[in-house]
Amino acid sequence: MYLSQRANCPHHRLMSESLTTPQDPSTDHPSDRQPLYRQLADQYRRAIGNGVLRPGDRMPSMRAFMQRHGVSLATATESYRELERAALIDARPRTGYFVRVPPTAGLPCAAEPDLAMLPRAAQFVGIHSAISAIVSTFQRHPHALNLGGATASPALYPTEALQKAALRALRRRPTLLTASGHDQGDPALRTIIARRALEAGIQLGAEDIIMTHGGIEAVNLALRAVTQPGDTVAVESPCFFGLLQALESLGLRALEIPTSPSTGLSIEALAFALHTQPDIKAVVVVPNLQNPLGSVMPDAHKASLVELCTHAGIALIEDDPYRELADAAQPPRSLKAWDTDGSVIHCTSFNKTLAPGMRVGWINGGRWHPRIGMLKFAQSRHNEQLSQVVLAGFLETSAYERHLRRLRENLRLQRERMAAAVAASFPDGTRFTPPRGGMFFWIELPREVSSPAFFDAALADGIRIMPGTVFSNAGRFDHFIRLSCPSTDLDLADEAVRRLGRLASRMAAHAARR
Amino acid sequence: MYLSQRANCPHHRLMSESLTTPQDPSTDHPSDRQPLYRQLADQYRRAIGNGVLRPGDRMPSMRAFMQRHGVSLATATESYRELERAALIDARPRTGYFVRVPPTAGLPCAAEPDLAMLPRAAQFVGIHSAISAIVSTFQRHPHALNLGGATASPALYPTEALQKAALRALRRRPTLLTASGHDQGDPALRTIIARRALEAGIQLGAEDIIMTHGGIEAVNLALRAVTQPGDTVAVESPCFFGLLQALESLGLRALEIPTSPSTGLSIEALAFALHTQPDIKAVVVVPNLQNPLGSVMPDAHKASLVELCTHAGIALIEDDPYRELADAAQPPRSLKAWDTDGSVIHCTSFNKTLAPGMRVGWINGGRWHPRIGMLKFAQSRHNEQLSQVVLAGFLETSAYERHLRRLRENLRLQRERMAAAVAASFPDGTRFTPPRGGMFFWIELPREVSSPAFFDAALADGIRIMPGTVFSNAGRFDHFIRLSCPSTDLDLADEAVRRLGRLASRMAAHAARR
Repeated sequence: MYLSQRANCPHHRLMSESLTTPQDPSTDHPSDRQPLYRQLADQYRRAIGNGVLRPGDRMPSMRAFMQRHGVSLATATESYRELERAALIDARPRTGYFVRVPPTAGLPCAAEPDLAMLPRAAQFVGIHSAISAIVSTFQRHPHALNLGGATASPALYPTEALQKAALRALRRRPTLLTASGHDQGDPALRTIIARRALEAGIQLGAEDIIMTHGGIEAVNLALRAVTQPGDTVAVESPCFFGLLQALESLGLRALEIPTSPSTGLSIEALAFALHTQPDIKAVVVVPNLQNPLGSVMPDAHKASLVELCTHAGIALIEDDPYRELADAAQPPRSLKAWDTDGSVIHCTSFNKTLAPGMRVGWINGGRWHPRIGMLKFAQSRHNEQLSQVVLAGFLETSAYERHLRRLRENLRLQRERMAAAVAASFPDGTRFTPPRGGMFFWIELPREVSSPAFFDAALADGIRIMPGTVFSNAGRFDHFIRLSCPSTDLDLADEAVRRLGRLASRMAAHAARR
Repeated sequence: MYLSQRANCPHHRLMSESLTTPQDPSTDHPSDRQPLYRQLADQYRRAIGNGVLRPGDRMPSMRAFMQRHGVSLATATESYRELERAALIDARPRTGYFVRVPPTAGLPCAAEPDLAMLPRAAQFVGIHSAISAIVSTFQRHPHALNLGGATASPALYPTEALQKAALRALRRRPTLLTASGHDQGDPALRTIIARRALEAGIQLGAEDIIMTHGGIEAVNLALRAVTQPGDTVAVESPCFFGLLQALESLGLRALEIPTSPSTGLSIEALAFALHTQPDIKAVVVVPNLQNPLGSVMPDAHKASLVELCTHAGIALIEDDPYRELADAAQPPRSLKAWDTDGSVIHCTSFNKTLAPGMRVGWINGGRWHPRIGMLKFAQSRHNEQLSQVVLAGFLETSAYERHLRRLRENLRLQRERMAAAVAASFPDGTRFTPPRGGMFFWIELPREVSSPAFFDAALADGIRIMPGTVFSNAGRFDHFIRLSCPSTDLDLADEAVRRLGRLASRMAAHAARR
């Protein structure tokens, strides 16, 4: 039964791909003093970590490995043993070595949204009080294990390196705290960001970038630039609750568009909505590692979405803070890459990828850029300089890339462990689609388990989760929860997930008996 | 002629006040190793600097001085010589010593607003493009001497002490950059701020305070909390242009209320406006050192204003970033001190008093506090932690008070020099009321001199000023300019003001010839 469901799940690729040839290890880390077998193992570990090699892929044969890297049989064998010890590959007798398929793959994927279900009428958003209630309940349990957050564990961010960068910046530029900064943000940082944006497929000059207080200020400015109170904004469903709060605070109405756990926003449903509801002023989309789904839109969908919005003459607001956390040899591109006439407003931040404590985001406003510049200046002036200078220093070297590789690998490991624990302990009827990177698990519980009750019970048991109900303004997702990778202590997280599983089983059984 | 005008000017006090007895110098700075005569001179220097002794006040006689401080004639004489050398007192033959009357006192005060001139109808604000034009013109002349800014010279802010505090904070709490902060702001900082607010007459708990990105975010949040687009907001006239920009960005209409250069907003005019225009939703007032006027509302006016707004049931938004820069033994109180039912929303920041590069402000939202908390969270989440921790460390010691004393004295000196230069070099028909502290001069030029043309000519001559036209959305203040104390190089500033004076004289003469 599981097998057939796996085959339907678009991102489970059972077939081996041709292996990308790794670089000559002697040039990879010239200063490395590790034994050759470990250098090679590390190379393959990275290839697995960043998705060049996917679960189920066949590893090269020993002979091919020896030839490719010009090493002895002893070195090849030792490299493979190292990878086996790290639980990254499995030997299959008389067949060869394969990239390990994590137990998660045994779980049924979440259902695709029913596109026959038309978007309901747009509604004014009124969800803030529900979210506030959860937050204040959280605050009454400060010591609960947090599986409900939206950032990785602080231990996974480069605390020491950033601290040193800040100390250096303060010594070099002592007036950073006392002198005013540039209205649009630090010019050197904006130049670096413009250069880096090329990787996302985005061509910008430094003057096209305005620094903001995190990604959320960017999204707010975008909404303010293109809407008036009372207007309708199309959003994903499920939808990041912070966006729902922003819509509520601006007096906007939300139209929730079905969104696939594997391919993101349904273009067909949006097209239908634009056709039938002409008062939609903007669409807000998280194209890469959607929150909470963890989906990544395929390039073809991204192209269609941009074309659709351009044709309809409405703003496409792209919220893209997770892009660099995607598992892939090459991070996915942003919607902005397909923009031809300034219809896409690109918003992002470094809060999730680098430092939750640094409120540094940025925005390119497309054809609304001057108006957004005006709104930003009127609303909060320039950002603080120190964080921007620290960030610029960090981005200029290879430190950011190295950090990202490590963060992605750590998150992948956490997700695998968590998926295995969910698969092992949650009751029948539980479904979820493994995310394509990042830190979120969007889990569908058996229909009998209501997430607000589950939230209360979990908190009483010392664990914070996010109930699905806060991800919709239209009363959807009652039996869904969002879990986040919380901690570098994987055993602790495992144990917590198992407790959640037992709790869900009890609640499902209890409901069934009634 | 000048004398009679001086007599009309409410804050020029020609009569000596009874001298406040200074504290015993031996307890003032116990660690001081300075000679006694200099300690005493410093004490009087501070009394003059903070306004305990005002220009024209008679100093104690030598005999009284010796008795009061228990010192010898030699010490008393040396103390007075020290003060004479600092140009703080003058000897008048056979009369005694007097606190020096700066040349500024010779200038005619600005006219009081004509209260018979009723407030015009409220207008949607459309001033951003005019301000943008000035800012971009500024940016094309980056090396011009800046007499158009709104902060003191960077040299007057405690760069080194803040740098050290930041280094210390980063070493003690290495995760400051990587861990998320508290939604409302750092709790320790809010506790300290609540304690300090008592000095402004404000009783708050830490939970009544929300940290914001500078004072401007606070004012924006206040406006968003109490208005809808299209609503009318009463503002001072002249009015800080940043507020006009905020109103414009929020789609609000401004009703400009006449404001006195010495006593601030006209309560009578506001009462009339509230009576005749029932759609006013809020009043925004800078009660202490109004920008650009430099006026301080008398306590009786503050009480009346709060009572008027409370009675009318509208929000009184107090923007109070300059309070601690006022020349007075005791800084003036905030409007919030008179608030009885939560009608006053108090907004302030440390940008002007401590560090323009640190975007740290705070707000108490009165009866709209929960809504403002919601808006702040939805708009930009919590502030960065580092600046807050640095600020908390700075406020906890006496460092902030010491810095403020020094800043006030420096600004007073700058203002005196600038006033003297204006009096010496600007043409007949120029008027201004010396500000009660801070850094702004609001100067009325002869009617023939239009400030936009003066702005262009000054910039061509290498000097930035602010034309009066940006301080009104109703086309007022064409022949006014705002000058700011720019620099610690007083000779440079003197020379620039003299050049401006010659320029104004030429423009006035040229216009008269036509």
